[in-house]
Amino acid sequence: MFGVGLIGGSFAMALKQAGCVERVVGVGRGRANLERALELGAIDEVAGDTPSALRGADLVLVAVPVQQISPVLAAIAPHLEAGAVLTDAGSTKRDAVAAARANLGLKLMQFVPAHPIAGAELSGVDAARAELFRSRTVVLTPLAETGDEARVRGDAVWRACGARTVEMSAERHDQVFAAVSHLPHALAFMLVEMIASRPDAGELFSFAGAGFRDFTRIAASSPEMWRDICLANGDAILAEIRAFQARLATLAAEIEAGDGADIELSFELARAARDKWVRSRT
Amino acid sequence: MFGVGLIGGSFAMALKQAGCVERVVGVGRGRANLERALELGAIDEVAGDTPSALRGADLVLVAVPVQQISPVLAAIAPHLEAGAVLTDAGSTKRDAVAAARANLGLKLMQFVPAHPIAGAELSGVDAARAELFRSRTVVLTPLAETGDEARVRGDAVWRACGARTVEMSAERHDQVFAAVSHLPHALAFMLVEMIASRPDAGELFSFAGAGFRDFTRIAASSPEMWRDICLANGDAILAEIRAFQARLATLAAEIEAGDGADIELSFELARAARDKWVRSRT
Repeated sequence: MFGVGLIGGSFAMALKQAGCVERVVGVGRGRANLERALELGAIDEVAGDTPSALRGADLVLVAVPVQQISPVLAAIAPHLEAGAVLTDAGSTKRDAVAAARANLGLKLMQFVPAHPIAGAELSGVDAARAELFRSRTVVLTPLAETGDEARVRGDAVWRACGARTVEMSAERHDQVFAAVSHLPHALAFMLVEMIASRPDAGELFSFAGAGFRDFTRIAASSPEMWRDICLANGDAILAEIRAFQARLATLAAEIEAGDGADIELSFELARAARDKWVRSRT
Repeated sequence: MFGVGLIGGSFAMALKQAGCVERVVGVGRGRANLERALELGAIDEVAGDTPSALRGADLVLVAVPVQQISPVLAAIAPHLEAGAVLTDAGSTKRDAVAAARANLGLKLMQFVPAHPIAGAELSGVDAARAELFRSRTVVLTPLAETGDEARVRGDAVWRACGARTVEMSAERHDQVFAAVSHLPHALAFMLVEMIASRPDAGELFSFAGAGFRDFTRIAASSPEMWRDICLANGDAILAEIRAFQARLATLAAEIEAGDGADIELSFELARAARDKWVRSRT
């Protein structure tokens, strides 16, 4: 268990509750956080170094910020036991795959890249809970090199956490999430930042209501994590920002022209699509 | 009571609960909706025409879509009793003030424009409840012509609904809400519309999670109401869209340049500002 925060802690708790693991060993940057994870029962032991953490481990999760995956995989590679399954929890997948290709060598066959869609606006092991992944989707993006056994076991452990699993390519994953996750996060962060940077920010915020609260909830997410996502998935996010800018320019032109019919049509289409989506989730 | 939907119905229910009104008379476009309002006890009577609705009325609420305020005020003006207080519930205020100036003549002194900040993503009298305005803010934008008595009574009735009241000019109101409400609605509608219009919309939506749900909740709002708001507050909304596009272009440039420090700084500023705002609300 490399990285014992919300995701790592919840993964360990879920697998313990499911009776799938005997002993969880934690490795992380912050000593205090690891102590807290011990107290909470997320992990059973803190490892002094990477080789001892990996000795006898048959399942390894890397749940660190996106930009740290590469050095962590480099440190893991020489010590990963044969037959162990290695998975991650990064929100972007092309970079995780690239980091694995650069660092794992023949052990690439043991790697099952994963993206659990859960809990993004909280962080830290204190927020961890065994139910975090229940009924959530985990996207798996196995490589051509991923071995069948690793693929099956990687899928099984995420399902043991209560998640639905779906497979797709890392490229498609990054496109899909640029649209439905990364762009909305960028918009929410930028809206709050724009308002906060104004001289009358205090008055403006005092009139923000429940709609603003929900719209900007994702702007409470970790700035470090989202910086890394912007860098790791930059090209796909840029394409989405540009498409959105074009859409916004069309709305602006409609407003300027007083074109109520086209404005209403766009809004109606959006509402109908969202209603359909919400109904499909329940 | 002209317009018996979520806002009109809730206003009537709240004032009845507070013991402030004896008899509520409803006027509206849809007969079925008015019958439903009678069943729910929001109104006591359906008026056949405007003169009979206003006979003996000492408080009149106009809670109709923004674009209908002008004809409704024109119909009300000749029949509004001396001493009656007239208020509205529109989400934009310069247009309500302009409609009042164009139609009310000397009765302008009886008008107290109001914007209750509540319940925007629901609609219809079935969603009405006496508690809708409790602890919510109602912005009042009295005119220079508004009489002192009307101003005091208008303030009192909204406070009797459980709301906090705040006074500002109609111009400032429309600027403030363009930033903290109208722009976020436009962004949410346009994001959903953009995704919904793609050939792979079904797959994209299937991977949208809780963050997307919250971010787009306001895209479930009434398309007709938001079309009217875009038209009524067009210049202020356009200014906000342009400011936001500039901010988004800066983020795009930072992503393109791989400028992690500036990206993180923006996100950090946004998160800190939102945290502070959320704490100030509780």
